[in-house]
Amino acid sequence: MEDPLYQLKQHDKEIKLLIHCRALLDWDQETYMPEKAIDERAEQIALLERLIHERVTSPAMGSLLEKIGVNDENPDGPGKYTDIERALVREMYRRYRKAIKLPDILVAEIAQKACIAQSRWAVAKRESDFTLFAPHLQTLVSLIREKADHLGYNTDPYEPLLDDYEPWMDPVDLDRLFENLKPELKVLQQHITEKGRKIEKGFLSREYAEEKQKTFGLFILEKMGFDERKGRLDISAHPFTTSAGSSDVRLTTRYNRHNLNTGVFGIIHECGHGLYDLGFSRALWQTLLANGTSLGIHESQSRLWENIIGKGLPFWQAFYPRLQALFPESLGDVDVINFYRGINAVEPSFIRVEADELTYNLHIILRYTLEKALINEELTVHELPEAWREESAKLLGIKPERDADGVLQDIHWSGGAFGYFPTYTLGNLYSAQFYMTMKKEIADIEEEVKKGNLLVIRDWLTHNIHIHGSVYPALKLCRKVTGEELNPHYFIAYLTQKYGEIYGI
Amino acid sequence: MEDPLYQLKQHDKEIKLLIHCRALLDWDQETYMPEKAIDERAEQIALLERLIHERVTSPAMGSLLEKIGVNDENPDGPGKYTDIERALVREMYRRYRKAIKLPDILVAEIAQKACIAQSRWAVAKRESDFTLFAPHLQTLVSLIREKADHLGYNTDPYEPLLDDYEPWMDPVDLDRLFENLKPELKVLQQHITEKGRKIEKGFLSREYAEEKQKTFGLFILEKMGFDERKGRLDISAHPFTTSAGSSDVRLTTRYNRHNLNTGVFGIIHECGHGLYDLGFSRALWQTLLANGTSLGIHESQSRLWENIIGKGLPFWQAFYPRLQALFPESLGDVDVINFYRGINAVEPSFIRVEADELTYNLHIILRYTLEKALINEELTVHELPEAWREESAKLLGIKPERDADGVLQDIHWSGGAFGYFPTYTLGNLYSAQFYMTMKKEIADIEEEVKKGNLLVIRDWLTHNIHIHGSVYPALKLCRKVTGEELNPHYFIAYLTQKYGEIYGI
Repeated sequence: MEDPLYQLKQHDKEIKLLIHCRALLDWDQETYMPEKAIDERAEQIALLERLIHERVTSPAMGSLLEKIGVNDENPDGPGKYTDIERALVREMYRRYRKAIKLPDILVAEIAQKACIAQSRWAVAKRESDFTLFAPHLQTLVSLIREKADHLGYNTDPYEPLLDDYEPWMDPVDLDRLFENLKPELKVLQQHITEKGRKIEKGFLSREYAEEKQKTFGLFILEKMGFDERKGRLDISAHPFTTSAGSSDVRLTTRYNRHNLNTGVFGIIHECGHGLYDLGFSRALWQTLLANGTSLGIHESQSRLWENIIGKGLPFWQAFYPRLQALFPESLGDVDVINFYRGINAVEPSFIRVEADELTYNLHIILRYTLEKALINEELTVHELPEAWREESAKLLGIKPERDADGVLQDIHWSGGAFGYFPTYTLGNLYSAQFYMTMKKEIADIEEEVKKGNLLVIRDWLTHNIHIHGSVYPALKLCRKVTGEELNPHYFIAYLTQKYGEIYGI
Repeated sequence: MEDPLYQLKQHDKEIKLLIHCRALLDWDQETYMPEKAIDERAEQIALLERLIHERVTSPAMGSLLEKIGVNDENPDGPGKYTDIERALVREMYRRYRKAIKLPDILVAEIAQKACIAQSRWAVAKRESDFTLFAPHLQTLVSLIREKADHLGYNTDPYEPLLDDYEPWMDPVDLDRLFENLKPELKVLQQHITEKGRKIEKGFLSREYAEEKQKTFGLFILEKMGFDERKGRLDISAHPFTTSAGSSDVRLTTRYNRHNLNTGVFGIIHECGHGLYDLGFSRALWQTLLANGTSLGIHESQSRLWENIIGKGLPFWQAFYPRLQALFPESLGDVDVINFYRGINAVEPSFIRVEADELTYNLHIILRYTLEKALINEELTVHELPEAWREESAKLLGIKPERDADGVLQDIHWSGGAFGYFPTYTLGNLYSAQFYMTMKKEIADIEEEVKKGNLLVIRDWLTHNIHIHGSVYPALKLCRKVTGEELNPHYFIAYLTQKYGEIYGI
């Protein structure tokens, strides 16, 4: 009889191959697919999703897990295994336990409906008309509610949904975290508005030719250590990163001729995700451990690169001359300090992905509040646009008039992703905590960045975080890397110091 | 109990969805995939190939076909079905009968090895070094031989291989066809060389910026009626067309700054394939009848467009002014008659895809002879490059010195495609016969083309050929459309008339 662990790994490898095939179909849909192909693409994706689900929940999988002796009492598997093997067994069991609760047909239906909804969302956003998207969103909310019911929960159907993106995180803990964060952010914002110096950022909406933005973006990717033999950068309406193989990471971005931030920081952000996906230890390749351990940790990578590094002064001391040389007419009269201040200006705005690091989290709290209400049936799809405007007024002090600037701006819900948004703010919290540890371990890190050496950052992150894939759950990884629990204090301290300098307060 | 035909259709639809997924992976590999992704891509493709094969040969499939009453004695299924249903059952049975002879593991191994071999072939071709490719070709020849043994044959292992691309065609008939064709082609060629006027074609290797070639190519695609909402054009090392859905056809081409023919006629050729794939009756979508009925018929479409239309005088009377306006420096001193003669110059050359319509078929006979010898073990992989040079000398009177100009020029063998090449010449024969019928039915067809109206051609082909998919086998389709058997006389007559005018003989 063959070793059950070996057999389990063979099953898992086939699942991973199918996941990567599916990812390529998704990527293609958002980048190159002709528009009339969408209906069949939805069926293709639904089929792959069903094949994956069938394999994850197969009786063979169940009996192999049983043979190995992993169960609710022993979720880690036997002690004779290596740490990686135990983690593999743990994650396979967790996936299995969750997946067997879901009917095949529901999984395929969500995949198919989400694929269609996503393409309708894109149209609705272009037309800025929520009514075009509403029926599709309604369908998805019902299906996702149904999914939550199958998965089960203690008090809140949001629990198992959040768990898809941030395993082991309880919405009650998240509520507390956000409740504590909200006043601190609002106080800091008020302080900046009332006492901070005026910051000029008009130059960011001058003319920036897309081709040159791309040139600069590719240069930064190379500096960050992104291997172009293992990945690529394309254009899509909503930027994302996905893996079609262990050595095949696809980043996308979009460019705006009159908003320099969109392209540049979008690329740095996605590359942060991409480096995580390319950094898993080879021992984990083609297993389900070759995955970010949670989306919060994934976002910690993208947002550490985008904000702490990419919106930091040392970064621009290194690379601003090159940017300025590419855009002499738009940046010739802006020095590096004013550029640095401009890209960091704090100001309430409509669009999440273009928000500053402080108000960004208010955007997240808004979405978190609304999606929980939708899932808990405290809010209808019909009421959503108005609720968005009201929450926006409460949290940010501004009300979007156009649906495209409000409820339609993000792709997530159209893909059935409820429970995803809070991971962005978790990512911010983790990133600040990781960076403080990095700074302790590499004393001259800012000097290195100032010299243009970003590989020192990439290597630290790879060594401490990326190689582990999902061997350690997020909160445990945080303890392992930083020596303590997730602590929002680091993020607040980081913001306070950064904006203190920028705003002279 | 559910209707077995309905169930069969459900099985077939799932197979078709997987075939389209596989096609997208292939397309991506040749267009956008990062180079380090190749090994896992090979595994992904092998897995999909195995899943397809499992479904094609599943016991459920076998028992449904049995229930319906299709078997070797009744290969068309019961008379109570519609013509399309009978064809569907016939083709499913044919596929099933052939596929159950092949072990799953061999199918997956060929797919995986071919994927790797293809990427190594690309390197070998770039380096013009056959030895880099030889071991991979050796592996493939052995595997394909093994495949032929499993499939079975009367006297020649080439039989079941040819049948993959040109169903119902016997190599013995092909031998006879080619033996008759060869002297006629050589006589015509000699006649042209000895008595024809001198034709100037040097202007074709002047400077043609790629971006402008693309502009012209997209313009022609539109004129041909290629719907950009249902397909796209990209760049690859070896041009091809593939379908990732009923409304998702991917064309590729390549451009050469100093060879105008490569891009322009490559695009017209691939679009000919693409229109076939987009022209299937909607009733056939997502079934295995939504497929060219043979590669010979598929090539008849691409080569009719490329040569009979695209290299015809009326076409350039319509579109030459636009081409000239795009390239005033390279074409300003060339009038339409000299342009037309230049693109049709007959001359032995090394590269098949750039050959004139006459010598092209000698290139095919060369490949057909060699691949049959390889499969019949009358020739080793080691001896292949020299055999290529000798055959080339015999057939074309010239010997390529570089492997890249000889044995390495074509992608087919690297993908395990033995039995494919002869379909190009079959395509030429069919195309001339179809065109003669079209001319009879649309008397003023050349006048229409001269006015730039290519839709009249597209519509005739769609109505007479495309909509049928593989409802009719190739030879039967030929009779249905033209009223007679495949008759090489039409092709020879076409060449004789065309070159008679061009060369003034």
